[in-house]
Amino acid sequence: MVAARQALPLDVPVGAVLLHQGQVIAQAYNRRELDCDPVGHAEILALRAAAQKLERWRLTETILYVTLEPCPMCAAAIQQARVQQVIFGAYDPLMGACGSQFNILPPSGPLPVLGGILEQECSGLLKAFFQEKREKA
Amino acid sequence: MVAARQALPLDVPVGAVLLHQGQVIAQAYNRRELDCDPVGHAEILALRAAAQKLERWRLTETILYVTLEPCPMCAAAIQQARVQQVIFGAYDPLMGACGSQFNILPPSGPLPVLGGILEQECSGLLKAFFQEKREKA
Repeated sequence: MVAARQALPLDVPVGAVLLHQGQVIAQAYNRRELDCDPVGHAEILALRAAAQKLERWRLTETILYVTLEPCPMCAAAIQQARVQQVIFGAYDPLMGACGSQFNILPPSGPLPVLGGILEQECSGLLKAFFQEKREKA
Repeated sequence: MVAARQALPLDVPVGAVLLHQGQVIAQAYNRRELDCDPVGHAEILALRAAAQKLERWRLTETILYVTLEPCPMCAAAIQQARVQQVIFGAYDPLMGACGSQFNILPPSGPLPVLGGILEQECSGLLKAFFQEKREKA
């Protein structure tokens, strides 16, 4: 949640934290607009930072926490990076790739995924962002 | 093909070039091992470089050329970045997401995809890389 808020006011407030053996080794927030980066989602940035820290791109023994259900790009990146487990907050009925709209990381797949943790807080932050955007438009 | 060869000897030789209104604005090669970057595929690096050049992450009016059929992560990134067309060389029966194994960018989808261009040359380079790897192992 703290990471997610850092994306404001420019980017959709999504934050991600990566743990390795119980220690936080990376945290990131969505910077797509800020950095003009088409792959600048919180998950991707956390994966990249963690890989730099561990000096390997295969992120075995890591757990990813993210405030929003990963999109297909992020879900596939998480899978390819060998992340061990994913725990997310709000479900994303439009772009969610952990079963909501796409099945890159299905709930019953080989990579354990747990959704809906702190769902109210995570989705509340997103709803407020989009409501403010609509009001300004 | 020139970009792809730059990935050698460490990384799987895949190269990508991005055109905007007929001009090459970015080229990249697979640097996953070299950079310890879980998302360091040629396509992702070309998208990021092009976005920096155009100063926007929505890469409308661009065409991506890549020597290998994109994987699910890259295919989803290409789609989200609003690339207009994809042209690739070798098909990837294991990880290809343009119809070979996954259907992120299916051949008959809204984003035009053309595969099999210079297929022999592109797949020859990959086969030689993996054969050498097997011989060394």
